[in-house]
Amino acid sequence: MKNRYENSVGLVQPQTCTFKEPIHLVCGRQLNEYQLVYETYGSLNENRSNAILVCHALSSDHHAAGYHHEDDSKPGWWEVYIGPGKPLDTDRFYIVCANNLGGCSGSTGPTSINPETGNAYGPNFPIVTVADWVSSQKNLMEVLGISQWAAVVGGSLGGMQALQWSIDFPELLRHAIVIASAPKLSAQNIAFNEVARQAIKSDPHFHDGYYYDYHSLPQGGLSLARMLGHITYLSDDAMGSKFGRALKANGYHYGYDVEFEVESYLRYQGSRFANQFDANSYLLMTKALDYFDPAKDYGDDLAAALAQTLCRFFVLSFTSDWRFSPKRSHEIVNALLTHNKPVSYVEISAHHGHDAFLMRIPEYITVLTTYMQQVAKECQL
Amino acid sequence: MKNRYENSVGLVQPQTCTFKEPIHLVCGRQLNEYQLVYETYGSLNENRSNAILVCHALSSDHHAAGYHHEDDSKPGWWEVYIGPGKPLDTDRFYIVCANNLGGCSGSTGPTSINPETGNAYGPNFPIVTVADWVSSQKNLMEVLGISQWAAVVGGSLGGMQALQWSIDFPELLRHAIVIASAPKLSAQNIAFNEVARQAIKSDPHFHDGYYYDYHSLPQGGLSLARMLGHITYLSDDAMGSKFGRALKANGYHYGYDVEFEVESYLRYQGSRFANQFDANSYLLMTKALDYFDPAKDYGDDLAAALAQTLCRFFVLSFTSDWRFSPKRSHEIVNALLTHNKPVSYVEISAHHGHDAFLMRIPEYITVLTTYMQQVAKECQL
Repeated sequence: MKNRYENSVGLVQPQTCTFKEPIHLVCGRQLNEYQLVYETYGSLNENRSNAILVCHALSSDHHAAGYHHEDDSKPGWWEVYIGPGKPLDTDRFYIVCANNLGGCSGSTGPTSINPETGNAYGPNFPIVTVADWVSSQKNLMEVLGISQWAAVVGGSLGGMQALQWSIDFPELLRHAIVIASAPKLSAQNIAFNEVARQAIKSDPHFHDGYYYDYHSLPQGGLSLARMLGHITYLSDDAMGSKFGRALKANGYHYGYDVEFEVESYLRYQGSRFANQFDANSYLLMTKALDYFDPAKDYGDDLAAALAQTLCRFFVLSFTSDWRFSPKRSHEIVNALLTHNKPVSYVEISAHHGHDAFLMRIPEYITVLTTYMQQVAKECQL
Repeated sequence: MKNRYENSVGLVQPQTCTFKEPIHLVCGRQLNEYQLVYETYGSLNENRSNAILVCHALSSDHHAAGYHHEDDSKPGWWEVYIGPGKPLDTDRFYIVCANNLGGCSGSTGPTSINPETGNAYGPNFPIVTVADWVSSQKNLMEVLGISQWAAVVGGSLGGMQALQWSIDFPELLRHAIVIASAPKLSAQNIAFNEVARQAIKSDPHFHDGYYYDYHSLPQGGLSLARMLGHITYLSDDAMGSKFGRALKANGYHYGYDVEFEVESYLRYQGSRFANQFDANSYLLMTKALDYFDPAKDYGDDLAAALAQTLCRFFVLSFTSDWRFSPKRSHEIVNALLTHNKPVSYVEISAHHGHDAFLMRIPEYITVLTTYMQQVAKECQL
């Protein structure tokens, strides 16, 4: 077990923070009280200048690094990038990652009890947006005694949170690191989300979202949604090199049982996910993605939306990512350059597709390490 | 009404051909008798040299051109390309298009009565392959008194049939025109098909395919499958320029009703399709796609599979097609060139995505017209 914790933050324990002040959400509703579950890695330095907020993507959570139990089969979702000596170096930085509001890993969400009714929120949980997450993360920041983030970092939907931070609280972060992200979804992105939602909602076990009351779970629909998502996370090439047309058994069977390895893999991924994630939370996350569009309040002018930002930006994209392609990162970079905002951009050659942001890719490790060393220098670490 | 029939084959009537000889299918099973419904446009010339077979794609049918009724709102699916003075000029050519075996538009398929049981085949209809379709089309060819096709033409799954014709019956066609197609599905293509199948099979109204017996229809699942398919038929750009992030109503509503035009469009396309198509047929068509791989019997060497072909090839692809991208057409062209097979290739600039093969695109019309004029010359038309 010892070796496994080398270069790892090792055993970690999630913490919970309860907020008794209401949070006013973009949708017009409010939560009178809520809690956020979060993890921290490394130590906050004396002048509190070394804190980094890591924002998670669609279906991950606050468990970004280390292990919860000695017998955990897998570490946190960004173990490759967070730890001693890693790009987000826990010997230097104090790293915070919180489960997003509306999630299902401990922060208040659809599976939580609504104190006003005594029942789970279920489908009555309000729609949450990226701006709401940022606002709740700011409340957590205050509780933790952090007055400014050295950096806010995230991939995919996490990158959208980093971008929103730079707009909503310009003074409160020195760097925004936006990885494999986009300034808003395209029609195709929304279309995929809509199919995923319809898959969940048309599952007979969904019961209009009140499935907890029926002691049933819309696992079929959630599994379908995940299978579909998974296809969009991988590149055609990555799927090709991983599976090609490899068969599950010898020769064709000419029936509807699994023929190809890729079918078997997708079914496995779908059903594993459906056992772990809450369908109402999944619906909420897809809506947060759809609604994200910081330029909307600025006459669809992203440059105008970013005009008030004060941090430095680091934007990264991956060549084979077709969910949020490099073109989408260029939109962010170009908008920043319009008002001479400081931005560095790297397009990393990787065949993994969108999932590249989670993968161990040497070039990615190198550029992120280099950038974070700069950040550390500024913090006088 | 008169104007509408200008440059159209006008009113057409489907015909049906019943085959009493058994057809032995690739899956190992056989149909003791079956029928094909088909349409013809133009006239067969005296030396029977001007016949063209048009093969349809996943969800279309034998109705490729003209109108069935005076009040039809839409003509056949390839009306732009078939008719007097059009690329497939009915003043010169005799055009045949048959509904594929296993379909649901009149040819024997899952909704047909199995003469051995007196009930609909339903899920017991045998798996059909592209080679089976070609073999049944050859039987139809004999009935129609055609000894050689001037050309076999098809887009997408139709192009696969043209390719299979060139391999299975080299002497029986002079040209194979393969449009927006691929020599086999990629892992990603199979993955999308698998999600579509799971959507249908997990619909509670599917009843393991015996839904006719329950007087129910798995319309939810079929609709989902179609929505998903539809996304893959359009390019990201085409969806973007058609819908962008346009809203159905004013402003965001922060709920699960339709917010974006693209959601509304997809739901409409899905439910319209689910009212017209048979779910068991849809499953069969996706399996025919998955299994198509003519190189498989030749040690995965496509050039070897195509070595015995005798026809000329015309291969077309569309720049924005990501379902069967130009790269997939290059595989066909390169394999043909390995053995110096005569092939012309055109990559057409079009932003429509895979659906481009059905669209009115000037460059596409020009190149297809030019090629077909050559074909006509050879026929001494």
